[in-house]
Amino acid sequence: MAVAALRLDEIVARLGGRLIGDAGRSIRQVATLERAGPDEISFLANPKYHDKLAGTRAGAVILPEASAGACPVACIVSDEPYLYFARLAQWLNPPEALRPGVHPSASVESPIPDDASIGAGVHIGPATRIGARSRIGPGCVIGGGVILGENALLHANVTIYAGCRIGARAIIHSGVVIGADGFGFARERHGSWVKIPQIGGVLIGDDVEIGANTTIDRGALDDTVIENGVKFDNQIQIGHNVRIGADSALAGCVGIAGSARLGSRCTVGGGAVILGHLVIADDVNISAATLVTKSITEAGTYSGAVPAQEHAAWLRNFAHLRHLDSMADRIRTLEAQLARLPEAQQARSNDGEKKP
Amino acid sequence: MAVAALRLDEIVARLGGRLIGDAGRSIRQVATLERAGPDEISFLANPKYHDKLAGTRAGAVILPEASAGACPVACIVSDEPYLYFARLAQWLNPPEALRPGVHPSASVESPIPDDASIGAGVHIGPATRIGARSRIGPGCVIGGGVILGENALLHANVTIYAGCRIGARAIIHSGVVIGADGFGFARERHGSWVKIPQIGGVLIGDDVEIGANTTIDRGALDDTVIENGVKFDNQIQIGHNVRIGADSALAGCVGIAGSARLGSRCTVGGGAVILGHLVIADDVNISAATLVTKSITEAGTYSGAVPAQEHAAWLRNFAHLRHLDSMADRIRTLEAQLARLPEAQQARSNDGEKKP
Amino acid sequence: MAVAALRLDEIVARLGGRLIGDAGRSIRQVATLERAGPDEISFLANPKYHDKLAGTRAGAVILPEASAGACPVACIVSDEPYLYFARLAQWLNPPEALRPGVHPSASVESPIPDDASIGAGVHIGPATRIGARSRIGPGCVIGGGVILGENALLHANVTIYAGCRIGARAIIHSGVVIGADGFGFARERHGSWVKIPQIGGVLIGDDVEIGANTTIDRGALDDTVIENGVKFDNQIQIGHNVRIGADSALAGCVGIAGSARLGSRCTVGGGAVILGHLVIADDVNISAATLVTKSITEAGTYSGAVPAQEHAAWLRNFAHLRHLDSMADRIRTLEAQLARLPEAQQARSNDGEKKP
Repeated sequence: MAVAALRLDEIVARLGGRLIGDAGRSIRQVATLERAGPDEISFLANPKYHDKLAGTRAGAVILPEASAGACPVACIVSDEPYLYFARLAQWLNPPEALRPGVHPSASVESPIPDDASIGAGVHIGPATRIGARSRIGPGCVIGGGVILGENALLHANVTIYAGCRIGARAIIHSGVVIGADGFGFARERHGSWVKIPQIGGVLIGDDVEIGANTTIDRGALDDTVIENGVKFDNQIQIGHNVRIGADSALAGCVGIAGSARLGSRCTVGGGAVILGHLVIADDVNISAATLVTKSITEAGTYSGAVPAQEHAAWLRNFAHLRHLDSMADRIRTLEAQLARLPEAQQARSNDGEKKP
Repeated sequence: MAVAALRLDEIVARLGGRLIGDAGRSIRQVATLERAGPDEISFLANPKYHDKLAGTRAGAVILPEASAGACPVACIVSDEPYLYFARLAQWLNPPEALRPGVHPSASVESPIPDDASIGAGVHIGPATRIGARSRIGPGCVIGGGVILGENALLHANVTIYAGCRIGARAIIHSGVVIGADGFGFARERHGSWVKIPQIGGVLIGDDVEIGANTTIDRGALDDTVIENGVKFDNQIQIGHNVRIGADSALAGCVGIAGSARLGSRCTVGGGAVILGHLVIADDVNISAATLVTKSITEAGTYSGAVPAQEHAAWLRNFAHLRHLDSMADRIRTLEAQLARLPEAQQARSNDGEKKP
Repeated sequence: MAVAALRLDEIVARLGGRLIGDAGRSIRQVATLERAGPDEISFLANPKYHDKLAGTRAGAVILPEASAGACPVACIVSDEPYLYFARLAQWLNPPEALRPGVHPSASVESPIPDDASIGAGVHIGPATRIGARSRIGPGCVIGGGVILGENALLHANVTIYAGCRIGARAIIHSGVVIGADGFGFARERHGSWVKIPQIGGVLIGDDVEIGANTTIDRGALDDTVIENGVKFDNQIQIGHNVRIGADSALAGCVGIAGSARLGSRCTVGGGAVILGHLVIADDVNISAATLVTKSITEAGTYSGAVPAQEHAAWLRNFAHLRHLDSMADRIRTLEAQLARLPEAQQARSNDGEKKP
C-alpha cells in the first residue's frame, strides 16, 4: 500500500520543518525508533522516549528543536513532531486503490455512483444515496432512505438502519450499528414495558471515524447528532438523542446515556459513563472509567475512578467505605469534645501548624 | 410509515382519557413539546418540563390533570401520560408492511412460512422453525435446530447459534449474538486452559427486545434463560446459565456474569456489573456503573459508583482511599485517648449535640 | 453431537482416576448433580455443593477422594475433578462433523484447502491462506493476506481485516472484529484530529479462543500480539499494540488500552480496565470492575472496585468521598491538639490497646 519512496527534501518541501542531514535520503515507511531501518522515518514527540534516540537506526527522525542535537541520523525539526508524523504517515500510506463497481453478489435497490465500490454480499435498501467514491465493504447492510457522503469508507459487516444520514469521509469499522432503536419504554403499573417507537434518526457530520462494534442509536422523536470531526474508538454506546460536539474524541467502551449532550473538543477516557440528560461543556476531559452523574459547566479535567491496589489492602480499606458517614460523625464528635477542654483551647491557640 | 391521521376523538375512543378542546383535530405524528406542529401531539409527563407547555405549538398535548389548566392547546388528560403517549405512538407508527418471501440470495435449509420475510444473504440451518409473520433482516445467520416465535423481528446481521429458542414478538437488533459458548475452562496445573464444551442452550421468552451488539451466551450444562417481557439495551453481556426474571430492563453496557439470577421487574443502570452465581431478588434497582458483589435479598435500590469530581480535588481525595483503614484506626485511637481524659468525660456528659 | 456412549471402565482407562462402582455402566452425557440421570455423569469440584451429592440420580460422579464416601452412586476419584470433567465432556461432545467444501454463495479470492469448510455468504480476499480442516461460518469476511492456522473454527459473522495472522485451533465467536484500526490521532492546535494510519498487524498464537463481539485492533506501527493459549470472553476491547501473555484469561467486557502489556497466566475479571502503556507482570489476577492505573510488577491479586450498598446508605457514605482530604486534615489536627494535652500524653503512655 505504501508509495514507492519519498526523499527527505520532498517531504520538507510539502510538509515544512527544518531538515538537518542528507536531503536526498529515500524514505519508504514510518516505524518506531527501535525498529526503523535506514529507509524508514521515525519520530520523537514524548521526551520520555528521548533515550531511544541515540540507538536508532532510522533513516531520519522527526523531532523538536531541543532534541535535534542528540540525533545520530538525519532529522526534520518540527514544533509538532507527532502531527508532522501523522501527515507524513498518511502520505506514505494512501488508501488502497478503489475498485469501482458493484460485486455481483450484492443486492442493491438504489442507484450507485460509477466510482463507488460495493463489496460482496452487501445489501442496500431503496431510496438510499451513496456518495461518490465511497467504499462499502463485504457484508454491510444499509437500510432504505440513507444518505452517505462522498469518500466514505465502510469496512465489512457494518449495519446502518433506514433513514440515517452520514457525512463525507466517514470511516466506519466492522460491526458498527448505526440507527438501532433507542431504549425507550413506558412502564405499566404491573411492571411490564410498552415500547415507544423510535422515530428520530441519526445525523452524523463530516470526517467522523467510528470504531469496531460501536453502536449509535436513533433518536426517539428528534435525531441523535454527531458533529463534524468526532472520533469514536471501539465498543462505544451512544444512546438516543445524544449530541456529541465537533472534534470530540471518545476512547473504547465509553457509554453515553440518552439525551446527554457533550460539548466540542471533549475527550472521554476508556470505559467512562455519562448519565442521561446531562450537559457537558466544551473542552472537558473525562478520565478513564469515570462516572459522570452531574452536568459539567466548566472546561477542565474530571475524574472519579478508584485505582487498583493489592487485594488484601483493598479489603482492609474498602470495608470503611460503607462507614464513611459514621467516621465523619466521629471526627465531628471528637472535635466538639476537644473544643470543650480548656487545655485544648489553649493548645489550639498556640497551634501554628493548623490548617484553616 | 405513519398512519394517515387520527382525530382526537378517535384517539380517546380507543385509548381513553379526557379530551379538552377540538375533538375533530387531526393528528399525524408524535413530537416533543418544542418541535410539535399543529398536526402533531406531544406529552408532558415530567413536571420538570412544565414550563415548556406554554410555548408549545402542538395540535394537542397528553398530560396529567394538574397541568390541564396551563395547556394553551387541546389536551388529553391521563393519569399516566407517558404510557398513553407510548400507546398512541405505536398506533401512529405501525411496523413497516411485511414483504413475505425469501430473498433469492438467502440460503435456507429449513421450511419457511409463506407469510415470513427472509432478507438478502440470510443463512438458516436445518431443522429450524421460523414463526409465522417473522421478519429476518439481511445478513442474519440462524443455526440449525433453532425455534423462533411468531411475529419476531430480527434486524440485519443478527447471529443465532444452533438450538436456541426465542419466543413470540421478539425484537432483536443488529449485531446481537445469541448462543455463543459460555466462558468455561478448567485450568491445568501449569496454567493452560481446557475448554468445557457448552452444551446448554438459550431459552428466551415472549416479548423480549434485545439491543444492538448485545451477547447472550448459551449454558454450560443447563440453559441460559431470559423470561417474558425482558428488555435489553445495547452492548449487554449475559454469561452462561444466567437467568433474568420477567419484565426486567437492563440499560446499555451491563455485564451479568455466569449463573447469576436476576429477579422479575428489576432494572439495571448502564455499565453496572453483577458478579457470577449471585441471586438478586425481584423488584431490585441497580444504579448505573454499580458493581454488585453479593446477593441481594430485599427489593430496593442499590448503588456503589463514585461520582466524578474536578481532577485536582479527585487527586487529593482519592489518595486517602488507600489509607482508610489507618484513618479508621486513628479515629479509634483518638476516641480512646479522649475517653481517658477526666475533663473529656465531663464535657461529653454535657454534650447535647452528640449523635448516639 | 454426543458420541454414542462410554463405559466407566473405558473412561478411566483413557483419562485415569480410580473407579468405585459398576465399571460397565454406560455414560452418554455430562450434566449437573441436580439434573443428571442414570446415563449421565456429573462432577463435584467445589465443596460448597457437597450437599447436592446425596440426592443425585447421576450414573456416576467425578469427585475428590474426600467426597467418595458420601457418594450414593458410582464415582471416579480424581485429584482434579473439574479438569477431569472438562476432558470427559470434550470426549463426549466432539465437534460437529466437518462438511468440507465452499458454499456456492461464498466469494473467495484465495485457494481453499479441500478439507476446509467455507459457509454461505463468506468473503475471503486475495493472497489469504486458510489452514487445513478450518471451518469458516456463514457471513464471515476475511481480508486479503490473512494467515489462518489449521483446525480453526470461525463462527458466523466474524470479520478479520487484511494481513492478520491467527494460529492453529483458534475458536472465534460471532461478531468478533480482528484488525480494525487502532485509535490513533494527532491533534491540531484548533482541536481537530489527524488520523495516523495503522500499519501494524495482529498476531494471534495457537489455541486462542475469542468470545462474541470482542474487538482486537491492529497495531499502529508494530503488531498487536496475543500469545498462545489466551482465552477471551465476550465484548473485550484490545487496543493497538497491546501484548497479552500466554495462557492469560480475560472475562467479559474487559478493556485493555493501547500498548499495555499483560504477562502470562494472568486473569482479568469482568469489566476491568487496564490503562495504556502499563506493564503487568506474569501471574497477576485483576478483580472484576477494577481500574488499573499503574504498572504491576509483582504476581498477586489486585482490586479496586467499590461494592454496591443500599442506596440511602450509599448517599450518606459517598458524599464523604469528596471530603476525604479534609477528613484526613481534621484527624491530623485532632492528633496534634491531643498530643499537646499533658493528660493525653499521660493517658497514651498507659494505653496498651493502641496500635502502632
